[in-house]
Amino acid sequence: MRYLTFSLPSDPTPLLGVQRDSRIIDVKALVAGTWPGPPPASLLDLILAGPDAWRRLADAINVRLKADATHAAAYGAKDIRWHAPIPRPLKNILCLGLNYRSHAIESATSRGREVKIPEAPVFFTKAPTTVNGPFDSIPWDPSVTQQLDYEGELGVVIGVPGKNIDRASALRHVFGYTVLNDTTARDLQARHVQWFKGKSLDGCCPMGPVVVTADEFGDPQTKHITLRLNGETRQDASTSEMLFPVAHSIAWLSKGMTIEAGDIIATGTPEGVGLGRTPPEYLKEGDVIETEVEGIGTLKNRIVGA
Amino acid sequence: MRYLTFSLPSDPTPLLGVQRDSRIIDVKALVAGTWPGPPPASLLDLILAGPDAWRRLADAINVRLKADATHAAAYGAKDIRWHAPIPRPLKNILCLGLNYRSHAIESATSRGREVKIPEAPVFFTKAPTTVNGPFDSIPWDPSVTQQLDYEGELGVVIGVPGKNIDRASALRHVFGYTVLNDTTARDLQARHVQWFKGKSLDGCCPMGPVVVTADEFGDPQTKHITLRLNGETRQDASTSEMLFPVAHSIAWLSKGMTIEAGDIIATGTPEGVGLGRTPPEYLKEGDVIETEVEGIGTLKNRIVGA
Repeated sequence: MRYLTFSLPSDPTPLLGVQRDSRIIDVKALVAGTWPGPPPASLLDLILAGPDAWRRLADAINVRLKADATHAAAYGAKDIRWHAPIPRPLKNILCLGLNYRSHAIESATSRGREVKIPEAPVFFTKAPTTVNGPFDSIPWDPSVTQQLDYEGELGVVIGVPGKNIDRASALRHVFGYTVLNDTTARDLQARHVQWFKGKSLDGCCPMGPVVVTADEFGDPQTKHITLRLNGETRQDASTSEMLFPVAHSIAWLSKGMTIEAGDIIATGTPEGVGLGRTPPEYLKEGDVIETEVEGIGTLKNRIVGA
Repeated sequence: MRYLTFSLPSDPTPLLGVQRDSRIIDVKALVAGTWPGPPPASLLDLILAGPDAWRRLADAINVRLKADATHAAAYGAKDIRWHAPIPRPLKNILCLGLNYRSHAIESATSRGREVKIPEAPVFFTKAPTTVNGPFDSIPWDPSVTQQLDYEGELGVVIGVPGKNIDRASALRHVFGYTVLNDTTARDLQARHVQWFKGKSLDGCCPMGPVVVTADEFGDPQTKHITLRLNGETRQDASTSEMLFPVAHSIAWLSKGMTIEAGDIIATGTPEGVGLGRTPPEYLKEGDVIETEVEGIGTLKNRIVGA
């Protein structure tokens, strides 16, 4: 399934949608009458309802789509407003830093530091207030940061809670995968020593356009990830290059710390960020960033003065 | 007002309470019949309801307490189960690191690093799953960490949202103050480079016992903060020693990042942590930590094998 969160021009209330071919289908309208009780009101509600509910809803959706019962519930991609799949996570976004060797090297080099390849995952967080829609503009306040930068990443949405999870079973805790951009204020990242503040400016985590469920996405370590700035390719890598694959990251993260349904993990960015260029090049008003992960889709976000 | 969250032996449902002298009073039962509509079900609900609701509830409580209307609603401190005032925050706890000069020095020295006094606040976060009751045990899994350490701190609870807040008006955004212990796994803090993981083990943020509202607490920079380990004083300082006072921290934090009602800020720990001793001394099974801030109260937490 390819789930999304959307609203209609006539009503800003976010709805749970499913993408099938080029159509966006309102899940609630689709399964009305065939679902016992009210269907999940949001993607987060669905995730929290657990694997049995995921399977039952997928079955119900498939049955209705086979019957082509979409007459009252289908929209074109341009007829809707796209929201982040989980517009308000229940905690900060869990992030990996320096999880691609090439990016670890460019980051250290550009800051004039010795290159250290992490021996354990580097975890930090982004505030929930960073979450932004897949096609929304990213606000930039030059009085707050002069060094706004992009980071294209594969996002993981946890579905099954757990603690001390082993690598072999880690992927069974995943609900699905999404695309995100870990937009970063490099000056604040350095000034505040720890990265949280430079990673947490409002709107600095566009996400979506959909969450592809784990069964449909397949192996998360074989996907192409690309980022284009104003049409020019800046990041181009494979998730196979991650230093800590998704399963390892979940195992590390969950040591002594419960991961929960609805948690979002940003798996780190490959080389090609603005900081890594000589000289560094940061985002400016009007820049358009396209962030794409194979099998999921593409975010498109414009930098707009705040 | 001194607000708390508690439950009764007969029912685990958390209730909003107010502490007056040695009595704990169930706010809902106290104001029933005098309050238009249902009173706030939790401290977080009250905070989110905004300053008008805070004033109206305080007035209603005071009127009822003057009439000594507590016959059905008052308990002794030992008759209740104490919960963290906000058992589940809406995002990670926002934390300052190295916010007391003496602790910045002991941290660097004990890790064999050059002492650097921060020129801007160092911000990191703790997962919401760290939150623990004021008298609950702290779980310790020796297979996860061998270097569990305490950090006694003043906690700030934000009441009024804002962004780009100036120092002069920053304290007007505060709902109240609490005590917390930023319990830290030193080995994980170092191993994962960024501090989030070492700061986020389950149960590693005992908090409470009450939130004292800002009007009653007064100047947050004149309070004594102490921590005792098995009865022996280990931390003993004044909040006047903070490098970045609460108002400055709020101003820094809110630059480009919206702070929200219910946000919790841990303001950093003074010197005297286990890491700073020669040789370092970490927490072990059975240790009892008492964390006290003048005008609020004392947390008491035992280390118990997980």
